[in-house]
Amino acid sequence: MTDQPKLPPGVSASQFAAVLKRFEAALGAGAVVSDPTALAEFYDPYNLPGRTDFKPSAALFPTTVEQIQAILAVANETKTPLWTVGQGRNNAYGGAAPRLPGAVLVHLRDMNKVLEIDAANAYAVVEPGVRFFDLYEAIRAGGHKLTISVPDLGWGSVIGNTLDHGFGYTPYGDHTAAQCGMEVVLANGDVLRTGMGAMRGNRTWQTYKKGFGPSADGIFMQSNFGIVTKMGMWLMPTPECYMSCYASVPKESDLEALIDTIRPLVLDRTIPNYPIVGNALGAASQMSRRKDWYDGDGPLPDSVLDDMTRKLNCGRWNMRFALYGHEAIVDTQYKIVQAAFATLPGATFGGRKYAGATMTQDVPPSDRIQAGIPGLDILQMVAWYGGDEGGHLDFSPICALKGSEVVKQTQLVRRVVESFGLDYCAGIIIMPRSALQICLLNFDKKNPAQVDRAFECCKALVVAAAKAGYGEYRAHLEVMDLVAEQYDFNNHALRRFNERLKDALDPNGILSPGKQGIWPKGMRPAR
Amino acid sequence: MTDQPKLPPGVSASQFAAVLKRFEAALGAGAVVSDPTALAEFYDPYNLPGRTDFKPSAALFPTTVEQIQAILAVANETKTPLWTVGQGRNNAYGGAAPRLPGAVLVHLRDMNKVLEIDAANAYAVVEPGVRFFDLYEAIRAGGHKLTISVPDLGWGSVIGNTLDHGFGYTPYGDHTAAQCGMEVVLANGDVLRTGMGAMRGNRTWQTYKKGFGPSADGIFMQSNFGIVTKMGMWLMPTPECYMSCYASVPKESDLEALIDTIRPLVLDRTIPNYPIVGNALGAASQMSRRKDWYDGDGPLPDSVLDDMTRKLNCGRWNMRFALYGHEAIVDTQYKIVQAAFATLPGATFGGRKYAGATMTQDVPPSDRIQAGIPGLDILQMVAWYGGDEGGHLDFSPICALKGSEVVKQTQLVRRVVESFGLDYCAGIIIMPRSALQICLLNFDKKNPAQVDRAFECCKALVVAAAKAGYGEYRAHLEVMDLVAEQYDFNNHALRRFNERLKDALDPNGILSPGKQGIWPKGMRPAR
Repeated sequence: MTDQPKLPPGVSASQFAAVLKRFEAALGAGAVVSDPTALAEFYDPYNLPGRTDFKPSAALFPTTVEQIQAILAVANETKTPLWTVGQGRNNAYGGAAPRLPGAVLVHLRDMNKVLEIDAANAYAVVEPGVRFFDLYEAIRAGGHKLTISVPDLGWGSVIGNTLDHGFGYTPYGDHTAAQCGMEVVLANGDVLRTGMGAMRGNRTWQTYKKGFGPSADGIFMQSNFGIVTKMGMWLMPTPECYMSCYASVPKESDLEALIDTIRPLVLDRTIPNYPIVGNALGAASQMSRRKDWYDGDGPLPDSVLDDMTRKLNCGRWNMRFALYGHEAIVDTQYKIVQAAFATLPGATFGGRKYAGATMTQDVPPSDRIQAGIPGLDILQMVAWYGGDEGGHLDFSPICALKGSEVVKQTQLVRRVVESFGLDYCAGIIIMPRSALQICLLNFDKKNPAQVDRAFECCKALVVAAAKAGYGEYRAHLEVMDLVAEQYDFNNHALRRFNERLKDALDPNGILSPGKQGIWPKGMRPAR
Repeated sequence: MTDQPKLPPGVSASQFAAVLKRFEAALGAGAVVSDPTALAEFYDPYNLPGRTDFKPSAALFPTTVEQIQAILAVANETKTPLWTVGQGRNNAYGGAAPRLPGAVLVHLRDMNKVLEIDAANAYAVVEPGVRFFDLYEAIRAGGHKLTISVPDLGWGSVIGNTLDHGFGYTPYGDHTAAQCGMEVVLANGDVLRTGMGAMRGNRTWQTYKKGFGPSADGIFMQSNFGIVTKMGMWLMPTPECYMSCYASVPKESDLEALIDTIRPLVLDRTIPNYPIVGNALGAASQMSRRKDWYDGDGPLPDSVLDDMTRKLNCGRWNMRFALYGHEAIVDTQYKIVQAAFATLPGATFGGRKYAGATMTQDVPPSDRIQAGIPGLDILQMVAWYGGDEGGHLDFSPICALKGSEVVKQTQLVRRVVESFGLDYCAGIIIMPRSALQICLLNFDKKNPAQVDRAFECCKALVVAAAKAGYGEYRAHLEVMDLVAEQYDFNNHALRRFNERLKDALDPNGILSPGKQGIWPKGMRPAR
């Protein structure tokens, strides 16, 4: 991990040294890191050195909007490409590593203030370095009766996760939908506030999403049009009652009926949160390793999956969901869902009820994420093949929430994954009208051939899914261009549109080149 | 109403005649209207001829995307400014009239197909000419168990209302939040599809809002960056039970306690819809005229308002809200809300319960809007001063949903309105974290001095509200620039940003110049 850092394309070592001097002058020497060993922290953690060169040339750690403006001034003058991360913890998609080898990392982890918590209107305002852990602790420390939505891993940036269309599992689990108001530094250093924040002294910035005229928030998500420096997030008032529930079906072929059973219940919000439906291997990987079950090559045989369901007392598909609110309503919702599951042969069903106040106290690990308590437990899944040297890559297509569609998509993904000799490990996040299938392509980092196979499998999945009518919601650095390529309506009208915005907003192309397949002029791949 | 139509700025009558010939060649003569008498239909219906010149030079009625592309080609070549409307029925803000006098109206009322209704995932796809009446009828005709959200008047375009940040009153009342996927024709004629629609053959366009990369939907709302030609709208599954509820408080000073009582209930969705809280004058104007109560000049004295509440058996503030869902849950929600209102001295409270199926059958007029049944009843309010010659202008600021804030804002608005000698008529739409105060500035069109006063009052309100920290969500043509001017953070960063987008996306400035204060290069007011 001590190989030399990349330099930005076309820049000599001496030119780059001069650029670094300017960054040091702007930020102080302590906020500029270019030592290769120190930089290794920001490489793609689950990829192999030598296999890929997604490496930054240096990392900058600004603490203020003014310092970001100073960085942008230097970058524009010297045409230095940047890559912004909040915490850079989306390891399944590349961690903090830049898409453009040699880009300078603008790491916002030191801009980590929770600026405001308003319990009456239930929102918080955070800086990009604030992690889910931090926001959770700030709310506890303030004694606010508010509950946050957390993704599987609590170490990520609230802003970073939201900008990358991340999800959690409470009723506020669609994080982009919970965003209200942002402050953005544009490539030219101009500071923009969206929505009602566009008016000085406005008293409603975090309570009403829109402003007067077009809403730009959406174009600053999954993009490279600006650096978001503040964001409002709507929070859930801590309910009187929280009930963590589960259900499972015994057979692989029960998935269609399971989805069609829950479809009307999530659509009318009888189930008000973002449930997840995982396969047996997903369950097993959270508490064991592959070698505990099977030591053959190739994908796990169905007989082993049957063995798992017996020994773990789980189903071939297992659902986790939750209810929140006044206890009398929770009880009624539970009965309605229970009655629906009673129609599914062999299904199990149950739940554990907590007083809402418990959400900031002792809840068993299995019920924490839906209670908005951040953790890192799920990291265990990555150890499936490689133990401590395990890694993964996520393939994550969107599906309509219909039993037949979910079956069609999961079968397609399983077929392709297994054709690469890998195990099919999937969790399906259930939204009111759609589903997000997260397929973990686990591998052992000590097995370079397996790492290669996982990445090649991911590419094959992207193409096969698009052919079948499914697109991904997010992608690893190595497949970003390929995924963007699939969005091909009217000769890639969306990409051409994004490129027009990019040219207008960032003419020097300094902000995160290649992010989500959007390249600045002069760097666009031949097509 | 037969005064001459305006021509586009700087265009001679003969030049314009040549342009019209080209439009006729593209669309057919029947789809081009330039006769002054016929065009009068598209003037601001509540403004006075002679007082304002927001008039189109002609109106075009395309029926297809290809015809829109042909219109844009002619407009770009001849630098002809356009103004797009779906139905042009937002009469409180100018109707179909263009902000730029002499712009050519692109009227989309003949693109009126309901393209798809999906009952399983509960959405519809519509063209811009589809009215709320039309969508309602299409759903009835198809026998779908779906309920739409309708604004007060059913004659408007679903797309037009949504693009202008419109509201209805079911749980899907925030229409922009219910939008999923759009097709847009850009100024250069390029056709863009947002979200998953950016992929050919994608099967999830209307079920998942985002795509891969930035989401542009928000910048095509309340803007002039494109012409939206298709839109997905999420619909509510028709509930088992619908309960239309009301509450009122007797004294003007009860408003603060009323708002603070409902705040936690709408925040946690115990009240799941978008309630409205109206003042006594708002209630009276729906069933009577001013002359029935008072014939003095100046604002209505408090004694008359007291008289109203006695005779109409209503409160000084009256709330309408509704519950939807499984009957057992509705009953529980009702009890929780009832208990909360029991703490308010003098409050009345009640509700009427219907089987959900009734929502497409006979429901008394007062309970129709919250059931998603479109109507025109509320037009009666405009007759307050002028009877059949009544008109109005809406002033509509956003407020945080806190009792103290709502009181502060309503008192400010009332004070300014009454200082112009007008009656204060207000309805406050309640959102989970904010409130939208719609202040109707009613007037008698036969009284030109009163019309002038209403418009001058609106301008004074815009400035006074901004000074107090409140911005408008929408505005009449005549005050659009003034409202935009109030969004002044960082030397009007948002307006400067919008102008950069405008220049990049519509370099000839042909699309709706001046919409929401966004002017193309060359037309920007001196500042």
